[in-house]
This record gives sequence, structure tokens and C-alpha cells, in this order.
Amino acid sequence: MDFTAPTADQVLAIRINAGIDELAGHARFAAATPDMVEAIVDGIGQFAAGEFAPLNRKGDVEGARLADGEVALPDGFAEAYRAYVEQGWNAISGDAQFGGQGLPFALAANVLENLGAANMAFSLLPMLTVGAIEALAHHGSDNQKATYLARLISGEWSGTMNLTEPQAGSDVGALRTTATPRGDGTWLIKGTKIFITWGEHQLAGNIVHLVLARTPGAPAGSRGISLFVVPKYLVNPDGTHGARNDLRCVSLEHKLGIMASPTCVMSFGDNDACIGELVGHENEGLKAMFTMMNSARINVGSQGVQIAERALQQASGYARERVQSARAGSPDKAPVAIVEHPDVRRMLLRMRALTEGARALLYYTAGQVDRGALGIAGAQQRADCLVPLIKAWGTDVGCEVASIGVQIHGGMGFIEETGAAQHYRDSRIAPIYEGTNGIQAADLVTRKLGYEGGKVLKALLADRARDAAAYPDLAALAQDCAAIADWMTTSASLDDRLAGSVAFCTMCAVAVAGAQLARQAKALAGDDTPQARAKAVVARYFAEVIATEARGLKAAAMAGAGLLYELDSENLAG
Amino acid sequence: MDFTAPTADQVLAIRINAGIDELAGHARFAAATPDMVEAIVDGIGQFAAGEFAPLNRKGDVEGARLADGEVALPDGFAEAYRAYVEQGWNAISGDAQFGGQGLPFALAANVLENLGAANMAFSLLPMLTVGAIEALAHHGSDNQKATYLARLISGEWSGTMNLTEPQAGSDVGALRTTATPRGDGTWLIKGTKIFITWGEHQLAGNIVHLVLARTPGAPAGSRGISLFVVPKYLVNPDGTHGARNDLRCVSLEHKLGIMASPTCVMSFGDNDACIGELVGHENEGLKAMFTMMNSARINVGSQGVQIAERALQQASGYARERVQSARAGSPDKAPVAIVEHPDVRRMLLRMRALTEGARALLYYTAGQVDRGALGIAGAQQRADCLVPLIKAWGTDVGCEVASIGVQIHGGMGFIEETGAAQHYRDSRIAPIYEGTNGIQAADLVTRKLGYEGGKVLKALLADRARDAAAYPDLAALAQDCAAIADWMTTSASLDDRLAGSVAFCTMCAVAVAGAQLARQAKALAGDDTPQARAKAVVARYFAEVIATEARGLKAAAMAGAGLLYELDSENLAG
Repeated sequence: MDFTAPTADQVLAIRINAGIDELAGHARFAAATPDMVEAIVDGIGQFAAGEFAPLNRKGDVEGARLADGEVALPDGFAEAYRAYVEQGWNAISGDAQFGGQGLPFALAANVLENLGAANMAFSLLPMLTVGAIEALAHHGSDNQKATYLARLISGEWSGTMNLTEPQAGSDVGALRTTATPRGDGTWLIKGTKIFITWGEHQLAGNIVHLVLARTPGAPAGSRGISLFVVPKYLVNPDGTHGARNDLRCVSLEHKLGIMASPTCVMSFGDNDACIGELVGHENEGLKAMFTMMNSARINVGSQGVQIAERALQQASGYARERVQSARAGSPDKAPVAIVEHPDVRRMLLRMRALTEGARALLYYTAGQVDRGALGIAGAQQRADCLVPLIKAWGTDVGCEVASIGVQIHGGMGFIEETGAAQHYRDSRIAPIYEGTNGIQAADLVTRKLGYEGGKVLKALLADRARDAAAYPDLAALAQDCAAIADWMTTSASLDDRLAGSVAFCTMCAVAVAGAQLARQAKALAGDDTPQARAKAVVARYFAEVIATEARGLKAAAMAGAGLLYELDSENLAG
Repeated sequence: MDFTAPTADQVLAIRINAGIDELAGHARFAAATPDMVEAIVDGIGQFAAGEFAPLNRKGDVEGARLADGEVALPDGFAEAYRAYVEQGWNAISGDAQFGGQGLPFALAANVLENLGAANMAFSLLPMLTVGAIEALAHHGSDNQKATYLARLISGEWSGTMNLTEPQAGSDVGALRTTATPRGDGTWLIKGTKIFITWGEHQLAGNIVHLVLARTPGAPAGSRGISLFVVPKYLVNPDGTHGARNDLRCVSLEHKLGIMASPTCVMSFGDNDACIGELVGHENEGLKAMFTMMNSARINVGSQGVQIAERALQQASGYARERVQSARAGSPDKAPVAIVEHPDVRRMLLRMRALTEGARALLYYTAGQVDRGALGIAGAQQRADCLVPLIKAWGTDVGCEVASIGVQIHGGMGFIEETGAAQHYRDSRIAPIYEGTNGIQAADLVTRKLGYEGGKVLKALLADRARDAAAYPDLAALAQDCAAIADWMTTSASLDDRLAGSVAFCTMCAVAVAGAQLARQAKALAGDDTPQARAKAVVARYFAEVIATEARGLKAAAMAGAGLLYELDSENLAG
């Protein structure tokens, strides 16, 4: 099934939800004119559809393979990545000082949205590079910036994030990889990291690993973690490649999905000769990680939108072509395309409402990140509150929509050649990595809800209730959320908040996403275009069905932790 | 991860929800004494855990393979199947006249529940045989019964159902396979069938294919379909094997899951020499199919329970072993097993509540089938109403619980070696086959709801509201369902009913399942056992959280079809 970029809906979301025109009113983002926005969205959409999408199934079937320490990708990946770099798509939001275009994050998010909808596994390569760029841009020395940034921003080199170890997953503070001073200002790195996405490959000239490790005498736990830059090839002072560093990919994981993304076990310092440089200050590695966390989590939330879009296109194409059974109650017994059957239409409309709602939330969040970068009052805190919403709910949407996509195909959905099953498999990683959705919800109720005693989140919800005024169910949902926030900030215990966190996070996300759809529908009201007509229907369906369902989570959000601890852990589950 | 049969909960459900003691009060089922029930549930649980479960991952990795027209299964499958037949497990509910034990369907359902939880793909082999037995028992001639039934009931031979063709899936009336009289009372069968589960293999001595086909001059559509028995090996009058029939497996599908279940494309009559016998009357094939449909759909609904149980055991084992992070808010910073964290506990309790709720619904439904077979007034109609509920919601539960199981494992859940991903993949077929869940919901709102003008379903709901009296949310849900049923039977159009059918079906299933859990909790009230304590918690959680969520579907159930048809099909989905 071909992929066509959803350009019109993306432009709408960038305009209405990210508020790109307002951003372009600031000198820093003055280049983000309407023409530029359309050129980017249109251009990356065509690029993704033309270059990345045709490799999606091939990547799934052939996967990444490890042989003699080197990772091979299927034919075509290297050429497509080279074209991506040459056309400058990686540099959209990079610092102009290092060759970037300095455009808003909202537009960089659109690049990733299109790449990932075309080929989720492949898009992880540029997505991970973003993290390395941010770490070095915010915390690197001038020399480190000069060495790495230009080539990471161009995409000539790629980046990775090395956090996880077998005993240190959600609890990154438990990591054991060590860094020992070599006496010349550099460090010897030693340890094993797992789940390193695109940790080894031949598509980029160098791979810049950002590695968390402990220095001698560092405090226990997360306060004793430092960040190091550890390149695959050492870089000479003149910028040329030096020696191969002492690090290697020792194995690839066999995964449920994203087969073309090599998920590596990385071994650093097998020969006690792995050289790294400290980034920022010793023991401040976790702080540096937090810098990258917002954009990384938003980009993972975007993966939910991506896979949902791809699954929707696949299913709607099939539903229009597959002829089966007559319309119920029709005197004409001729079979019709299944898109004509009420329940298939319901599934498609649900897929679309979830997809466009998540997209609206994505760009609203991205726009707040850009406002935060501009120093606009309150924007950064608002972005911080939105991040767990788009990461958790966005990725849940990806899984649900991919599953409905399988269902619409009937028996063919279970056959791998059809393609729907790949989306179902690929989608399932996104609720897990970059902080599980449970961790996102915990972040919402323990950190973000605490901003100014809950006022930040409640102001966000009040704004959404206003946006949603034309949709009573949606406005009521926003009010439910505010009431839960009140309960959580006043009488609920920490355990109570955590017990209700996932339900609350979903409710908030649906409330905000629905309100953003309402803003889109309002902006198009009066237009007599297919887009305007469709958006009115989508916004209504979202408010009347999706928001109402979310209201059904209120009891779960406020159930408290008592019942969860009535049974001891041995008797809890059978 | 090992599998342990959930014997205690199964015995409880068979006792309380199927009402086995009451069944045993009837002469036909007098053998179903409490001792016999415990012996069966205990015995098949141990057999499944010991013989089928160890082959589950192996079957997933190696899969069924086709070579030279023959299907090979991984080592161990043949031996396990032989042991299953030798120990007599296949014959639990078969007619005593043909070597069966004549026990209630509720006990045969328990055999399949245990086999499928141990190894879902493998359990499809005996599950499909049930359909062939029922078709021949109800519609076969005396000669056909004598030829086939004893060896199908023992499991020495296996059976298949051949309905689907590429253009005839949900719409079975569109099939094109032909049957032409040979003049000697037998028929020449010619055509291609797809998605034939266990259509070819070497585990049984013969494969008895039940094939739907059209005879010359048959009416178009579903009124012109006849049922034929088409054995792999023709059977001589003395019961010995005759010649190989002209039918073969031409390919196996590459599927998302249930890899050890060969899903065959079957070609009948390539050499114009495929011989079949008519079962029942010409053009009454669909009626014969309906005979088998109830038990087949219940058995698929059971697959949801099966995979949920297996996923729950896998996840709870991991959650008790995996140590990560300190308890939030605890002064002690020592990391704990993740089962101690509130959101992990919530996920486990949700998995358990869904699993046990679906099991309670399964055995309640099975018990109504048994009452129907006894001719007890109203039971058959009640069973008919319950079938779409257990099939659709049961299989949705399987998928949801398997997905939560992946989530509890974090990154390890996405790695195939862990095993959680297999359950996620395997589970996804069950909402599709044996009538998609959309078809089930349509059956509920177009046929079953119409029984006595809605009175049958409403009486069922009223009984459940009474059972649920101790749980206000559950009782309220049953009342919501009754109100929707009223609307559907009075003012809603056919399209309106279909548009709300899936939401309504889910609501009814949750209402009935929750009420069955309430009955279990009531039966155990006062016992000071781990089972009684756990059931009280599970029933409360189900009522307070799952039932409340289901109430959030009311708007979707009553939304009507208007919005679905506001956009034309070209503009419906992007």
C-alpha cells in the first residue's frame, strides 16, 4: 500500500495548533513564512513517500543484520539516507551557526512525522540524532560543538543515546558503566549498554554515542551519573577521522517490530581503550538527559500519529476496494465496498478522529516548545505538562488505530503480506521506550501537576474547556480533568495519584486533543471544502464519542490505591 | 515462562456460572459429579501444562512448514497429540454411542481452555474437529456417522471447516466452489478454499474436511449452499483407509501469529477426482453451519480467556522477579520488585479482572448451551444472546490483556525471546475469525435483540442487574444496556443499531461478565481463603473500574449512524 503524506492536515495543525504565524512574528523564527511552511511540509511529504515508504515492507522482511560486528541494512536504505542528508532535511531546526536552518521545532517535528509514517524503523535514525545534537548544543564545550554539531545537524553523522543497562531500565540511576580519567582530559569508558537504537550501521560516516556512566567516587544513584560523548571513530583535531574507538555492537535484538531499526547491545572498552569526553559537568549527566527528554518524548508521541496515519491509509484503501455483502436492509442485494457498511465506517471515522486528534495535540505541544525557546512566559511549563500527554496517549492511539486497521482487513489483516500487521507490530514499541507510558503518567501526577500547586495544568484545562465550548461533552471532560486535578493536589495520597495516573493522563490528553480539533474546525468553519466538511465531522465524532469514553475513566482516575494493595503481591495475580 | 492451569478459578466458574451441579441433576449429565469435574479440570490442566505448553514457543519459532504438499510441525507435536488422544481428552462431550463420554459442553470447553492457554496454535487442531463432529452428528446420515464420528470423537482423525474463498469471507454466500453429482450418490468437488485451519498435517490418521459448495442450478447467494464431507483419504466400507482423495494444500499463509497452526490454501479437484458426500439436504449447508456456529464462536471467545490467562501468568511472574526503582515516597531508597509499584499493580489487577470476568462469562454461556441441549425453557435463546458477547468481548479481552502483558515487561516485552510478544501476536486473530467482532455485534443487534421483541435480552440484563445489586456501577451498567436495548428496539433505524452495535455488545458483555463475577464473589463470601479474598477484590475492581468505563460507551452506542454518512466514502478517511 502506497503512502501519501497528509499534507493538508499537517499544514492546518502547524498553522492552528502550533500557531506558526505567531512564531514567525518573532525575529528568531521569521523565516517560517507561510510559503516556507508549505514548501517544507509539501517537500518532506513527497520525499518521505517517494524514498522512505517504498523501503518499509522490505525493511520489515529483511531487517537489520549483524555480521562480523557490522550491521547491514536492506538494499536502498543507504541511498535513501544519503538523499535525505543531501536535500538538507535533517537540518531544519538546527542552529544556523552550524549549518542548520534555525526553523521552529514544529517544522522539524513535521519532518520526523512524515519520515516515520513512511518508515517508522528508518526514521529512528534521524530521530536519535536529534538527542545527540541537543545534548551537545546545550552542554558541550565549544570544542565539542565545533567537532560534532555541523555533521550531526547535516545528518552526515548520526547520534545515539546510551542509557539502558540490563539492571537499569526505567531506573537509570542503577547503571554501572564506568568512566575513568586518562589524565589527558579524556576518559576511559567501560560497560555494556542494551536497547541502543541504531547503535551500529554503515549509513553515516561516524556514529556519535552519548553515554551515561559513573566516574570514580561518584555518589550512588542518579546523582552520580555523568554524560560522555564517545564517537565510533575518534576525530582528529582537523576534523578528519581518527582511529576506530574501542566499542562494538555485540548483538541485535529479535523484536516484535521495527525490524529495520538495529537495536544493539553495545560493548564499550573490551580492550580498555574506549575513549570518551565528558559533556558538561561531572555528575550532571541526568540533568543533561532531561534537556533532551522533552523533544525525544514528543517525537515518540509523534510515532503514534505516524503509525496511525499509515494504518488509516492502508485500511481506508482496502475498505474502498474490498467488496463484500450487500448493505444491511437494502432492497438491492448487490455486494458493496465494505466502506459502505456502518461498522466499517465507524472504524474508519474512529481511526481518523484519533489520528487527527493526536496530530493536533502533537503540533500544539511542539508550538509550546517553540514558545518556550522564545522565552514566552509560561510556555515552557505548559510544554512540560503536554509532553507526557502526547507521549503516552499519542502512542496508545498508534496501537489502537493500528489494531483497528488490522480488524478492517478481516482475515487478510492477519496475513503479513497485507502490511496491516506490520503497523500493529511496529506501533507496540512506542508506549514502552523513552519512558514507558506508566512513567509518563507518573511524571504528570508527581512533577507536572505540582507546577505552581496545580495551577499550570488547571489553566491549561480551563483554556481547553473554553476552546471546546461548542462541544458540551468535551467541555465536560475538561471540567472532569480539573476536578481530578483538584482532588489529586489536595486530598489524594501519592499512591492514590499514581494509581489513577494513567487514566488521568488519558483524560487530559483527550481533553486537550479534542479542544485542538475544535480549534481546527472553528478555523475552517464556513469553508465549503472537503477538508472543512471532514474536519467538522471528525471534531464532532471526537467530542461525542472519544471524549465521552474518556469521561468513563473518571472513576479509575479517582479510585485510589487502596484496592490495589488489599492483596499481597503473591496473591495479586493468580 | 511455565504455564500453570488456573484450576481453582475454572472449577469455581464451572460450579457457579455454568451451574454444573444443577446440570448433573439431569439424567443426561448425571456423570458430571463434583469429583468427576475436579478430576477433569485438574487432569486436563496438568496435561496441557505438561505436554502442550512446552511446545508453545517452539511452535512459534519453527512454525508449520509446507514441503511437497505435506505440512510438518515441529518435533514434539505429534507425540503430544497422540498422548492427548490416548488419554481420551478429545471425547469428553462426544456422544456415548460413538465412544464419547457424553459430559456437558462446559467441561469440553474446559479442555479447550486449558489446551489453548498452554498452546493456542496447537489447540486449534482439536477445536476445529469439534465443528466436524457437530456437523455430522446433527446432519450426517447414519452411514456417515458410523464412518466418521467415532474416530473424530476420539481425535484419531481431525476435522476442518472449509467456508472461505478469496471473494467470500464474511459473505459466505458469495462462494463458488462447485459440487457435481457423480451418479453414484457421491459428488465431485472443485474449488479453492482459503484460511483453512489445520487443513493439512500428519498428526491424525485422516482429515475430515467439511466443505461448503454449490450444486448445479443452486440458487444464488446463501440459499444455494450445500455441505459436503470430503475426507483426505477415502474410507472403505470396512472403515479402512482407501485412496488419497484429490485435494491438497497448495500453500500456507505467513501470519502475524499462531505460527504452529497451518493456515492452508486448499485446492479441491485439481484432477477432477475429488469425491465428497452431501451432508444433510441440498441447499441447506448454511443451516448446518449455524448448528456449529454457537460452539465454534464460544470456543473462539474462550481463546481470549486463554491468551489472557497465559499473558497474565507471564506478566505477574516477571513483575515479581524484576527489581527496579524504589517505592515512590518511600524513605527507603532500595529498589523493589516492580509488582510493588502502584501502576504495575493496577495493570496486573486489570489483567486479572478482565481474565476472570471473561472466564465467568465463558462458563455462564457454556452452561446455557448445556441447558439448551437439555431442552430447558429459554436456555437456548439465552445462549444465543450470549454467544456474540463472549466471542467479541472475550477476544477483545485477550488482545487487551496480552498488550498490557507486553507493557509490564517494558523493553523486554518487545523482545521475542521473552514470550510476551507471542501472546500479543497470537491474540490478534481471535477478534477476526469465526465471524469478525463487527459481525458478532451485528448479530446481536439484528438477530438476537429481536428475539421476542427484545424481551429475551432484556430479561437477561434484568437478571444481571439483580446479581449485581451489591455493586451499584455494575447494576447501573445493566440498566444502561436495557435502556439502549429499548431505544434499539423502538426508535433506532437499522443503520443506527449497526452504528452502535460494537459499543452495545461490549457494554452487554461487561454487564453480564461483571454480574457473573459478583455471583462468584457472593458464593465465596465468608470464606477465609486466598481465593475468596482475591475474588472480592477482583469483583470490586471489575465493577468500579471496568464497568464504569463501559458506561462511557453509552454515547457511542446511541450516537446513531447520521454522522457516519455525512461524508462520502472518498472523503471519509483522508
